[in-house]
Amino acid sequence: MEKIRVELAERSYDIIIGSTILDKLGENLKALNLSPRAAIVSNPTVFSLYGERVSGSVKKTGFNVVTVTIPDGEEYKDLLRVKHIYDELLAHKLDRSSALIALGGGVIGDMTGFAASTYMRGISYVQVPTTLLAQVDSSVGGKTGMNHSLGKNMIGTFWQPALVWIDVETLQTLPKREVLSGLAEVIKYGVIYDKGLFDFLETNRDMILNLDRNALTHIIKHSCKIKAEVVAKDERESGLRAILNYGHTIGHAIETVTGYTQFLHGEAVAIGMYREAVLSHLLGFITQEQVMRIKAVIDSYGLPSEMPPDLNIDSLLASMQLDKKTEAGQLKFILPEKIGAVRIHKGITEKAIRESLLT
Amino acid sequence: MEKIRVELAERSYDIIIGSTILDKLGENLKALNLSPRAAIVSNPTVFSLYGERVSGSVKKTGFNVVTVTIPDGEEYKDLLRVKHIYDELLAHKLDRSSALIALGGGVIGDMTGFAASTYMRGISYVQVPTTLLAQVDSSVGGKTGMNHSLGKNMIGTFWQPALVWIDVETLQTLPKREVLSGLAEVIKYGVIYDKGLFDFLETNRDMILNLDRNALTHIIKHSCKIKAEVVAKDERESGLRAILNYGHTIGHAIETVTGYTQFLHGEAVAIGMYREAVLSHLLGFITQEQVMRIKAVIDSYGLPSEMPPDLNIDSLLASMQLDKKTEAGQLKFILPEKIGAVRIHKGITEKAIRESLLT
Repeated sequence: MEKIRVELAERSYDIIIGSTILDKLGENLKALNLSPRAAIVSNPTVFSLYGERVSGSVKKTGFNVVTVTIPDGEEYKDLLRVKHIYDELLAHKLDRSSALIALGGGVIGDMTGFAASTYMRGISYVQVPTTLLAQVDSSVGGKTGMNHSLGKNMIGTFWQPALVWIDVETLQTLPKREVLSGLAEVIKYGVIYDKGLFDFLETNRDMILNLDRNALTHIIKHSCKIKAEVVAKDERESGLRAILNYGHTIGHAIETVTGYTQFLHGEAVAIGMYREAVLSHLLGFITQEQVMRIKAVIDSYGLPSEMPPDLNIDSLLASMQLDKKTEAGQLKFILPEKIGAVRIHKGITEKAIRESLLT
Repeated sequence: MEKIRVELAERSYDIIIGSTILDKLGENLKALNLSPRAAIVSNPTVFSLYGERVSGSVKKTGFNVVTVTIPDGEEYKDLLRVKHIYDELLAHKLDRSSALIALGGGVIGDMTGFAASTYMRGISYVQVPTTLLAQVDSSVGGKTGMNHSLGKNMIGTFWQPALVWIDVETLQTLPKREVLSGLAEVIKYGVIYDKGLFDFLETNRDMILNLDRNALTHIIKHSCKIKAEVVAKDERESGLRAILNYGHTIGHAIETVTGYTQFLHGEAVAIGMYREAVLSHLLGFITQEQVMRIKAVIDSYGLPSEMPPDLNIDSLLASMQLDKKTEAGQLKFILPEKIGAVRIHKGITEKAIRESLLT
């Protein structure tokens, strides 16, 4: 088992990465000194695969466990479903020292985190991410949230988990397209922070796509390490942490305009990463050769890099204006300067953005 | 103008108390370094009285101000109304550096604080409390929240305001019953922490009930001082802060069981304070004479101290079990030992509680 510590003073916590470790969650939860009531929040698909193992492990150490399920999909990441979680927690009398266990992907993790941060003014929660995307990104760092019809993750909090428990074994049952979507975020870490990881992705493509456990553990560990380091330096995204949004300014707008149905998150981010690299090149910050290397890796993992031809550019720009990364009306872009290094830019003109979208 | 500082490291802020100071809010808001968009959240009654003055003052210093109104009443302190705030903030494109201004009583303050804490993972807000209850209690300390059909304030966060702006002049238009409700919390501060304040309440009843500005400023200042001190020592209520809940364990249960319609918050707390003093006496912690002095002050301000005869004790006990102050199934009571001093107690038997309710 690999252990990475997220250093955040009294909010510090461990990320544990291993293979076939779901059965060991109970004893580790026990060490967190919580009340005997806990709730597993999951979706029916994930719960049918791993629910019994997690629930059994937790019950064995003396917890009284309730299960709350939410339908599977980004379109259910809303206030109605959060209300359903509240209803169940209250009906089963979970109290201030109870804990929630998020068993699933990013949707489950984000909503469980939000519910934990707002239930009785904040209770503990544990992330047990079962998708690659959640393992390398959303389960670490305490961003919680839900969508609003006017934009993704518009409602949310910063609320750190007490533990992140990553079992790479769960990726064996993950649909291929979901694995690729998660790899988009791994590529992102390479571009923004870690040339070594980017090189590893270039040279170990087949092993990764064959879900080799060692290769997966390697990329998850390095991704989590970067995320932990960035979050420790800037928990509430007042500066550095924004670099994690590379590919996301355009990516989120694509997801919003297409109603979260056409693209998985990582797919939209993949398109966003390439477009933002193109924007960076148009502004003279990165060479054409480096941009092409970024595109080549995206393509080699079967991820989209081109904009869908029928996408309305005006809607896309309008959606970006409403993105919560916007400050005082100014869009913020994370632009790569070379593989392994990015810079945060404000005040980029609409003309330049438009051009990068049409190139 | 009186100034009290709430010391909470990077979350510290000032409470300003004065007479006819609403017009000066704008310049002070300006100093907080926010983006040019702000939203005033209020109810129609309060907005018609003070909305123009606050809005005018804020606009004069360059802010672009949106107004969001919510119907007046505790029964509207729910998820639906918070959603309405989100909808308006997004429709008017408020961003991460925008601020909310809560203009009204506790309901407005709690919901505005909750919306601020969860909008785009947290934005600034300013409390402009216009009821005595909000001025001495809910506007200070960062507790935000809304009600759930299964209990009061079950959903909420800790999110400190950037400024609390108290104009005692607003109390002149407050319905008498609301003033009395606020006085219940002032009595509470006397009992739990400040014999001097309790004595002042005993000897200056008429001046206070005649809304003398100096007397009001005195009791508000001393109440806020106590609250600021307690909150600075224990922001998230892991210990000391619980003493502020004196009268509230029983008080909240009364409000829940009567559906928030029969009693104002302070009235329910007044009954709760007397009942919890009786419980303390039954357990041998306080003399009969001190309990009677507490009851006498409650009665002298025209507040209720007796349980309504038709209240179902079993429903009341069931509701307490679900109170968020319950930990691992154990009820927590704040019991006075003499005027000016209380202690936190757990593990009090249902039998003792029942007896104190029936005495």
